[in-house]
Amino acid sequence: MPITVARTRAELQAAITQALAAAELRAKVARELAEDALEAAPSEDVTGVSLGLVPTMGALHDGHRRLAEAAVAGNDVVVASIFVNPLQFGDPVDLERYPRTLEADTALLESVGVDIAFAPELEEMYPGGEPLVRVTAGPLASKWEGASRPGHFDGVCTVVAKLLHLAQPGPGGAPTAFRAYFGQKDAQQVAIVRRMVKDLNFPVEIVPVPIVRAEDGLALSSRNQFLSATERDAALVLSRALRLIEERASAHEPLMPDDAVALIESQPGVALDYFDVVDTDTLEPLAFNCRETPFTGEALAIVAATVGPVRLIDNMPLRAR
Amino acid sequence: MPITVARTRAELQAAITQALAAAELRAKVARELAEDALEAAPSEDVTGVSLGLVPTMGALHDGHRRLAEAAVAGNDVVVASIFVNPLQFGDPVDLERYPRTLEADTALLESVGVDIAFAPELEEMYPGGEPLVRVTAGPLASKWEGASRPGHFDGVCTVVAKLLHLAQPGPGGAPTAFRAYFGQKDAQQVAIVRRMVKDLNFPVEIVPVPIVRAEDGLALSSRNQFLSATERDAALVLSRALRLIEERASAHEPLMPDDAVALIESQPGVALDYFDVVDTDTLEPLAFNCRETPFTGEALAIVAATVGPVRLIDNMPLRAR
Repeated sequence: MPITVARTRAELQAAITQALAAAELRAKVARELAEDALEAAPSEDVTGVSLGLVPTMGALHDGHRRLAEAAVAGNDVVVASIFVNPLQFGDPVDLERYPRTLEADTALLESVGVDIAFAPELEEMYPGGEPLVRVTAGPLASKWEGASRPGHFDGVCTVVAKLLHLAQPGPGGAPTAFRAYFGQKDAQQVAIVRRMVKDLNFPVEIVPVPIVRAEDGLALSSRNQFLSATERDAALVLSRALRLIEERASAHEPLMPDDAVALIESQPGVALDYFDVVDTDTLEPLAFNCRETPFTGEALAIVAATVGPVRLIDNMPLRAR
Repeated sequence: MPITVARTRAELQAAITQALAAAELRAKVARELAEDALEAAPSEDVTGVSLGLVPTMGALHDGHRRLAEAAVAGNDVVVASIFVNPLQFGDPVDLERYPRTLEADTALLESVGVDIAFAPELEEMYPGGEPLVRVTAGPLASKWEGASRPGHFDGVCTVVAKLLHLAQPGPGGAPTAFRAYFGQKDAQQVAIVRRMVKDLNFPVEIVPVPIVRAEDGLALSSRNQFLSATERDAALVLSRALRLIEERASAHEPLMPDDAVALIESQPGVALDYFDVVDTDTLEPLAFNCRETPFTGEALAIVAATVGPVRLIDNMPLRAR
């Protein structure tokens, strides 16, 4: 089926209702066919359909493709939103130059089987200007990316709350599941959105999707296109440093993150902001001594650095094997 | 049908699903009966059922009864929540002495036809302590009640967001409408919750319900029970002052709110906090000169004062006839 592009809440809700009804019909037909085929054997109950939401800011790359594919694989109906949210940009220049490639984005989404692209105008999302009532991310936003981007995660939480409300099935839809997909690349965003869903009881399941890397190891990002060849080469030190720590974690060794810091700081053209090993949910640095204690359990290694004109972030889950 | 008391989200969602299914069945039977009766005449489409939510902090009085009655009259299924929300109390003593009368509350709700009472424990609403991610009310909360109760409306927005998410129909329910009912007595709360719903796109309709007054004119409040007979008598000056302005508005005269202020200030035992005439949505004082310009259109007169141990608020809609 061709993708439906919705520009307003009304169009979005109509498209969702129609797509859910079609999915229900398909499910019903499938069940009847199965019942015919199985004759007397008991058939599994079809209890409803599911809806997946993939919030994006457009400029889609293979990382987003993976997100959309995960949503399509796990749900009957998938909505992907494309909206460059001014609330989460501190710097107007950054907002201005954020790439906007709606036509290519819609084609990519359609190619992986997304049903509905929701691409609202600014006025649809923020009629009459910026919202007065907002969601605030709280202490989880005080560190790491939040420390260098004040207000960023408040803007993220506010727009994600809006999108969850806009996309959640309205009158007529009776899905059994509502899921929203976020890239693990923005690990702090995943942790904060999960906490928002828990603290404010959003009826949605947050599904993180692993980072997609280029062959050279660089985590995919819309901002990579602003890197020169030399800068890109320098940027590879970030994933190398993460890999170093990840290998020690797998091998049950002390992580010694100072080695990763030294590796990054020895790379010309890379200005390290932070490198640390943290709890995946709370984003607090690990309580044990990473220099001496062999690693057990699970954690997350996170890094941020400026390379040329671009701030890059990356992370790697750590798990003792 | 007897009221169902739910203590957890799971119980609440199960009760809602069951009640909606029952309502759908009733609607279907009603339609079939109507179709039989009308024979060839076209019958109105039954497109679904509706769910009403009445958020309360318990200690229910006739004002709440009116809220619940409005919800029952307008919806197939009604949930009333009873939860004394610590987030919206600045003063722990005030929180501590807030009356808790669950049994009487449940009986009142049942008597007016509420289907489900949702009375969660603190741990159900705030597992692991206070939420990190919250809703902030913004500039609408800087004045009036917000000025003397810092953080109060952030706490209100946060718990209302949670309740809207908890009560909104989950898997299996397909209501055509979701409405939440708030007393107009807390006019600033109504304005802020409406703004929250607009700014964050909650899929719910906010329905304000007019103030209920005792025969002597005092607006009903759970806190009135803390007034002595003398204090209660003194408190009547608030509704008298509002009525004075309301009569001038109806008669198309200049409002001259200073007269109301003088009236209240002349009453021993009453400490006036504010009296003003404001826009119902923005809560900003009217732009025109209330002393000279004849009143046209609509507005809201609001008042707050401390009488004995209690802070009282009241308001009256103004409309030129």
